[in-house]
Amino acid sequence: MKLVLYGSFPASEADRVARHLTSNWEVVPVFNEAPAQDKRERLADAEVMVTSVYRSRDPPAPKLRLLQCSSTGTERIDLEHLPRGCIVCNVHGHEIAIAEYAICAVLDWAIGYRSLAAAFHDGSWTLAEWVDGPNHGEAFGKTLALLGFGRIGREIAIRAKALGMSVAALSAWRSAPPDPTLVDRAYRAGEWRAFAEAADFLVVSCPLTAQTRGMIDAAWFAAMKPGAVVINVGRGPIIDEAALHAALAERRIRGATIDVWYKYPPASGERVRASRFAFHELPNVVMTRHASAHTEETWERRFRAIAENLEAFAQGRSLANVISDGGGKIDPSGRGQRESGDIA
Amino acid sequence: MKLVLYGSFPASEADRVARHLTSNWEVVPVFNEAPAQDKRERLADAEVMVTSVYRSRDPPAPKLRLLQCSSTGTERIDLEHLPRGCIVCNVHGHEIAIAEYAICAVLDWAIGYRSLAAAFHDGSWTLAEWVDGPNHGEAFGKTLALLGFGRIGREIAIRAKALGMSVAALSAWRSAPPDPTLVDRAYRAGEWRAFAEAADFLVVSCPLTAQTRGMIDAAWFAAMKPGAVVINVGRGPIIDEAALHAALAERRIRGATIDVWYKYPPASGERVRASRFAFHELPNVVMTRHASAHTEETWERRFRAIAENLEAFAQGRSLANVISDGGGKIDPSGRGQRESGDIA
Repeated sequence: MKLVLYGSFPASEADRVARHLTSNWEVVPVFNEAPAQDKRERLADAEVMVTSVYRSRDPPAPKLRLLQCSSTGTERIDLEHLPRGCIVCNVHGHEIAIAEYAICAVLDWAIGYRSLAAAFHDGSWTLAEWVDGPNHGEAFGKTLALLGFGRIGREIAIRAKALGMSVAALSAWRSAPPDPTLVDRAYRAGEWRAFAEAADFLVVSCPLTAQTRGMIDAAWFAAMKPGAVVINVGRGPIIDEAALHAALAERRIRGATIDVWYKYPPASGERVRASRFAFHELPNVVMTRHASAHTEETWERRFRAIAENLEAFAQGRSLANVISDGGGKIDPSGRGQRESGDIA
Repeated sequence: MKLVLYGSFPASEADRVARHLTSNWEVVPVFNEAPAQDKRERLADAEVMVTSVYRSRDPPAPKLRLLQCSSTGTERIDLEHLPRGCIVCNVHGHEIAIAEYAICAVLDWAIGYRSLAAAFHDGSWTLAEWVDGPNHGEAFGKTLALLGFGRIGREIAIRAKALGMSVAALSAWRSAPPDPTLVDRAYRAGEWRAFAEAADFLVVSCPLTAQTRGMIDAAWFAAMKPGAVVINVGRGPIIDEAALHAALAERRIRGATIDVWYKYPPASGERVRASRFAFHELPNVVMTRHASAHTEETWERRFRAIAENLEAFAQGRSLANVISDGGGKIDPSGRGQRESGDIA
């Protein structure tokens, strides 16, 4: 069966994918910089594609039966550009890495780890500096508010409970109420204000959908505690860009750690700013390059899962993480997933 | 009963202590800068003293019946300077704050949180920087090695297990073998080499005693993995100063986060370096000013516990955390404590 790894990200992982495959696949990597004609030819008879970006400007793939997304978010896959009946799956394996990043951010803000290190950068002290130095805070007893409670939210909750935090979570709770040992208080979308008010740390890890785009807006920031910190490991536009910048610049909230952004770098190689606002000039913002999941272990877990799904497809077994069965609609919860992380 | 808060640290907390006292106490704060004659007079008839430093150069306290240390470490209390029969207690309440600091340090080193933030400091990116940026690591599956398994070690282990880490602990295990849900592998002092070899993160939280002074020396660093990180939240001199500096400067280990030091600032107010070595010039060292425990919540827990002990003493009830019953010897485990953190 012909498998195209479309785009430089999956293409560069061709060896890793091949290592986990057992059936007889023709594996064709197509890098971003490949000539347009090559891309067209390679997609013309592809039966399976692994990619995280497939838009109407990309060449058609009329024989495609499975698009296996190489990321969890599928907002850059245009379903109407796929042939009828093409199944779309996404993939996970990043939840541990993202949970560790979020918990590190919580602890860093709670105890001021970076500030403590900066204050002692020359390794000298006086008795007054030592004894009368400012006290820092604790995560213990604080409320971690999870917007979305899918795989990532669950892993964050496990760690937050061990820190002695109170866990609030806002989710659709479609399948079942949340495990009370992990979630102290469950909210639905209609209760967003009480949820926002409760948060000492608000962690965003839901999918970007029509419902969640711009969901966190000025009204949320007005409801939040002045000492609250926002951590976004989901998708940038879930938080209204202008409202977030204003809340941080005007100190309506304490700070933010932001891994996911509003403007992504184009295939042309051009350098761009991640936002039209100068978040990087604010002292109360920690910015990272959408890398919270980027660990060697994530790629290993993820491409192993992708290869397992490709094998299941080749052998006619049922697929994991089906988010569209070919009818042109996305169900971000994934068929057969117990919890989805979506919020409405 | 006359209570002297001896030294600026407990003296400055006089209000907090008084708030938790219920019996009739005469509370006398004595700050470092008090005239020598005042100090002498105030200690002459003190029955109870709260202090973290009481040395032979300090005035005698011939009527003293209880020295309640205001810290956990009692290495700056000279027992031979106390009248016969004077009980010595220490105090805790810092274990949550220190555990959060240690876990934050583990996560920061594991995932490179500070590095990720520094790399994106101007908030701009290219596709290559995003997609081909370096992978970071995970704490998940790594081995956290705890030197000492008292209150602090236990709190660290709770959090490390939730992170999916393997927990190794070296301790005296005097009372009982460790809880297998918290400690995957228990070591005794004689097995130090296997313990050092296993560590991805070595956290020092045992007391400073004749046995532990200089315990971690060049032989330990030779045994450790090149990727290992040392985190010291116990006492500086448990790690040989020169060996630690050499191991870090020559990259025999990956890095260190150090909160406890070799030279403390004197009462004169003079500014001093925390080590005779230039740790602050090494890029692989995070230094903080012995502040991991310094949270408002620690002081509140600690002075509440101190006041409860003073009340117990006044009312003839049994005391908590007795480390000397007046016979001139220290038992750092504390009478009636299940686990002590000491290692031999």
